[in-house]
Amino acid sequence: MMTNYKAPLRDIAFAMSEVCDYQAHYERLFGADHASPDLVEAITGEYARFCENVLAPLYRTGDEEGCRWEGGQVHTPPGFKAAYDQFVAAGWPGLACDPVHGGQGLLRSLALILGEMSGSANIAFTLYTGGLAGAIETLAVFGTEEQRAVYEPPLIEGRWNATMCLTEPHCGSDLGLLKTRAEPADDGQFVISGTKIFITGGEHDLAENIIHLVLARLPYAPEGNKGISLFIVPKLLPVGEALEPNGVSCGSIEHKMGIKGSATCVMHFDRARGYMLGEPNRGLSAMLRFINASRVRAAFQGVSHAELGFQKSLSYARDRMQMRSLSGPTNPEGPADPIIVHPDVRRMLLTQKVFAEGNRVMLHYLAQQLDVVEHGVDDAQRRCAERRLDLLTPIAKGFATETGFEAANLALQCFGGHGYIREWGVEQNVRDARIATLYEGTTGIQGLDLIGRKVLANQGAALREFCDEIDAFRETSQVRSALVEHCRALSELTTEWQALARQISQRAATDANEMGAASVDFLMYSGYVCLAYFWARSAGAALSKARAGGDGASFYQAKLKSADFYFNHLLPRSRAHAAAIGNGGASIMALEEAHFAF
Amino acid sequence: MMTNYKAPLRDIAFAMSEVCDYQAHYERLFGADHASPDLVEAITGEYARFCENVLAPLYRTGDEEGCRWEGGQVHTPPGFKAAYDQFVAAGWPGLACDPVHGGQGLLRSLALILGEMSGSANIAFTLYTGGLAGAIETLAVFGTEEQRAVYEPPLIEGRWNATMCLTEPHCGSDLGLLKTRAEPADDGQFVISGTKIFITGGEHDLAENIIHLVLARLPYAPEGNKGISLFIVPKLLPVGEALEPNGVSCGSIEHKMGIKGSATCVMHFDRARGYMLGEPNRGLSAMLRFINASRVRAAFQGVSHAELGFQKSLSYARDRMQMRSLSGPTNPEGPADPIIVHPDVRRMLLTQKVFAEGNRVMLHYLAQQLDVVEHGVDDAQRRCAERRLDLLTPIAKGFATETGFEAANLALQCFGGHGYIREWGVEQNVRDARIATLYEGTTGIQGLDLIGRKVLANQGAALREFCDEIDAFRETSQVRSALVEHCRALSELTTEWQALARQISQRAATDANEMGAASVDFLMYSGYVCLAYFWARSAGAALSKARAGGDGASFYQAKLKSADFYFNHLLPRSRAHAAAIGNGGASIMALEEAHFAF
Repeated sequence: MMTNYKAPLRDIAFAMSEVCDYQAHYERLFGADHASPDLVEAITGEYARFCENVLAPLYRTGDEEGCRWEGGQVHTPPGFKAAYDQFVAAGWPGLACDPVHGGQGLLRSLALILGEMSGSANIAFTLYTGGLAGAIETLAVFGTEEQRAVYEPPLIEGRWNATMCLTEPHCGSDLGLLKTRAEPADDGQFVISGTKIFITGGEHDLAENIIHLVLARLPYAPEGNKGISLFIVPKLLPVGEALEPNGVSCGSIEHKMGIKGSATCVMHFDRARGYMLGEPNRGLSAMLRFINASRVRAAFQGVSHAELGFQKSLSYARDRMQMRSLSGPTNPEGPADPIIVHPDVRRMLLTQKVFAEGNRVMLHYLAQQLDVVEHGVDDAQRRCAERRLDLLTPIAKGFATETGFEAANLALQCFGGHGYIREWGVEQNVRDARIATLYEGTTGIQGLDLIGRKVLANQGAALREFCDEIDAFRETSQVRSALVEHCRALSELTTEWQALARQISQRAATDANEMGAASVDFLMYSGYVCLAYFWARSAGAALSKARAGGDGASFYQAKLKSADFYFNHLLPRSRAHAAAIGNGGASIMALEEAHFAF
Repeated sequence: MMTNYKAPLRDIAFAMSEVCDYQAHYERLFGADHASPDLVEAITGEYARFCENVLAPLYRTGDEEGCRWEGGQVHTPPGFKAAYDQFVAAGWPGLACDPVHGGQGLLRSLALILGEMSGSANIAFTLYTGGLAGAIETLAVFGTEEQRAVYEPPLIEGRWNATMCLTEPHCGSDLGLLKTRAEPADDGQFVISGTKIFITGGEHDLAENIIHLVLARLPYAPEGNKGISLFIVPKLLPVGEALEPNGVSCGSIEHKMGIKGSATCVMHFDRARGYMLGEPNRGLSAMLRFINASRVRAAFQGVSHAELGFQKSLSYARDRMQMRSLSGPTNPEGPADPIIVHPDVRRMLLTQKVFAEGNRVMLHYLAQQLDVVEHGVDDAQRRCAERRLDLLTPIAKGFATETGFEAANLALQCFGGHGYIREWGVEQNVRDARIATLYEGTTGIQGLDLIGRKVLANQGAALREFCDEIDAFRETSQVRSALVEHCRALSELTTEWQALARQISQRAATDANEMGAASVDFLMYSGYVCLAYFWARSAGAALSKARAGGDGASFYQAKLKSADFYFNHLLPRSRAHAAAIGNGGASIMALEEAHFAF
């Protein structure tokens, strides 16, 4: 009854090669012979098969069975261990890792692009592997040679797993409040004590060891964000070839709305042995690198959820017969027409499709910036990519996850009442998708990050630079008649976007709350502008092939039509956000706290 | 840990008495001495206590335990039977029913207004009582005297319960396809055979009997909607004082995303005895009365979910300390400020508040139209109310449930990651709220009903008449300086609303799909206009009391500020819907069905 996930390889290839020119990107960083198109295609296809054949069949059962906590042990759902073993055996954990420590040295963007597929096939499973990549990266950047030598190889193999331990019961968004203590031990190492919550994969039965990267405070550390250090705290301490117990235990797991196959753990550190990673009191900035990469990964989940819902609802809309087309029966022999003939069903399907495909292109672009930051040939190139990454990460995280959730709900809506029943799996997609706007920084946190740190802090320079990129695209594209309307819209948007930023800046100069009041509207507005740009680029990439005709042309014609739908039916939402920003924050702040309810 | 529901009696009284002038409405229908303000207040307060003390404590356990199906029997969650017994003992089922058959003869609007509270306290429980009211009403209108005498008294007592059986596996929105058969029996009655799905309360352990109102086809009935008849099919047949088995059984219950305490049943009718209700082949129009009332009831659930989420998130936002206010600490002694100081948290709280309170007023207004249709003193009055009810029911159902779901999600968002954990009950509210945009006609069905049957079918006359009402309010209100801006907006909106309807009509004349393509945008646009009207009326009702000062003034000042927030931050969304309508349906219809995915 339930549609099986099919990896959208054709569209991933379009985003990768035809819009973002992956091959040129590779060559720019490594020269011509680093990763051939054939190799990239083979890797992508292989991972697609793993997602379709191994992960997708565990999607529903993982939700139904969930994780079990028994006396400190966490049992993942049936089948997860075998799937993890296959994941490890195929070498997937090390795809984008340093070859010196056993990795394959491919680009980070490729790992992220693959992650979209596992996010669709089985997001709960995927969360056991996402933290791994982030931890390896953090070790690679901040670890000593010795630390890297001890921890990287088993993590890259996937024999060991890893977590990030940030949140505590009284602090999530505001890490400056954290209380976990790190006391110096006699041998120069540390003793870690405290409780962390919401630790994804904090304890489970998939790997032989789990390496926790823990934020904690040294004695006499400054208060707030500047007194936080980062520590490696293994579940089991590597002592020679042996693994010995450490003071790390899982107190319970959370009962959640969704992602039930992912163990969300309460972790107790009870005088556990820890090793400092990076410099004292600089833990939060070390973690920030990890956090930013996690945000890009979470943004990809918005695409995963939109794509999965789209596939399920498209399949249902083609099969389900209900009522006649308003313009005359399309299936006169049958009792009714398939519901895909109804304009509002098409609107819901197109909205999902256009968010999935548009956000996919945006994220491929963003993932390439990550590559350039890591491997760029010169400083100017790296710094430019860093500015782009800084600006677009909160937009992408906020916008792709919000619209991913909207898309998941539209998929359910296409099913009518049937969508509310568990067996179709489409309500699970809604529940699973709901976490994405919360973790790795809520949409509100992304909004503040965007307007405060990424736009106003540099007087709009990063925004101007990106608008210049859009304007440059527009100038070369507006001569193509099929793109004239899109380019006209882009021209107005880049002007308005910067004007809105200036308006917020001016108001915030006398009332800092104006920044917060506008933040999420500004984020969503920015998302709609970005998608306009990436849909215009997609249309530009499709145009000549769409006109060439022949068998392959219909794919490109669909791109042009999808772009039209975006500009006509979704981009107008930018009007609402711009107007809300224009109206200022006064009516948000006017109500006294005591008067919210009577 | 979880906030308990508190009935918003102050705000219900405001909507009821101060905006909608309930007392004048009563007097207009029944004369001065029918129901005193004291009586109405006493009833409302009593029901509020029942909701707070009996239903709310079963909210979480009902979700955790759910219903159990065992060999055809359905067991409701622990506590539901005792609560139902109290509901019956207090006489609540008969509140708005005919005194001749044991009812209390109060107005239907009062029952609906009370229903909002039980919908917040425990929507799953409430669904066992909602169908009861609808069935009693249908019997009252279409039943013979004999049928009324047999069925109404035990239903009004609540000793028996009732369902509506419409949906079948292959037809939901399109009832014309239904297959359940009704064959004449020798004694002039009928034998019913077929399977119905999604039957709310189809089988359970709350009442001694369940009366099913079943849509079925007579032999040789015309195809489609015009060949459907309505039948009374009791679970147990009343034979004298005894109850004897009938061919009715529950084959299974659905496993759903939410409302888990409500049994959603597959019902088999296997040569069950049935009695025709109303005329042959007129079943669908008989059912329509019921369906319309159910839609108003479902619309109230949008308020229920928005109110519940608002209460939970407001309480959390006052307690949770995280980060400092952008404009300087408000809680300098504490480790951080309560998150309600943050503008974006306020934006999320205000959005919920303004949807809950605005939709509440709209629905009180709508419920009064139901009263007038039923009890209006002359034909002209009744017909005017009917036109208003016809026009506003799809808007209210679609808009209040969509915004109710949005509000439920914003409540969860205020909690950050904690909202995703089951123990707070705020994710349950999201899951429970998700059904409301699906049942009693999806939002898409409401959209088609609105633009097709309610606007274009009468050449916009009903819309014009309602716009005239808005304009009349505006003309008398715009002289009040505090309302000038709201009135200016209303003036533009009533003009634009009718212009959009004309535009759709003109396009639909040559392409019927234009109607479907615009339908949901037109519905949501209409909702934002209606809420602008009802918020302007609320502000108008609050204005002089807000200025009077004194202890009570802060409630009214909050109304004025909430109205400002609505006009500045939510009404701008009408721009997006108007623009999408203006851009027409071409880009919705352009993509060939085969090219939705490759």
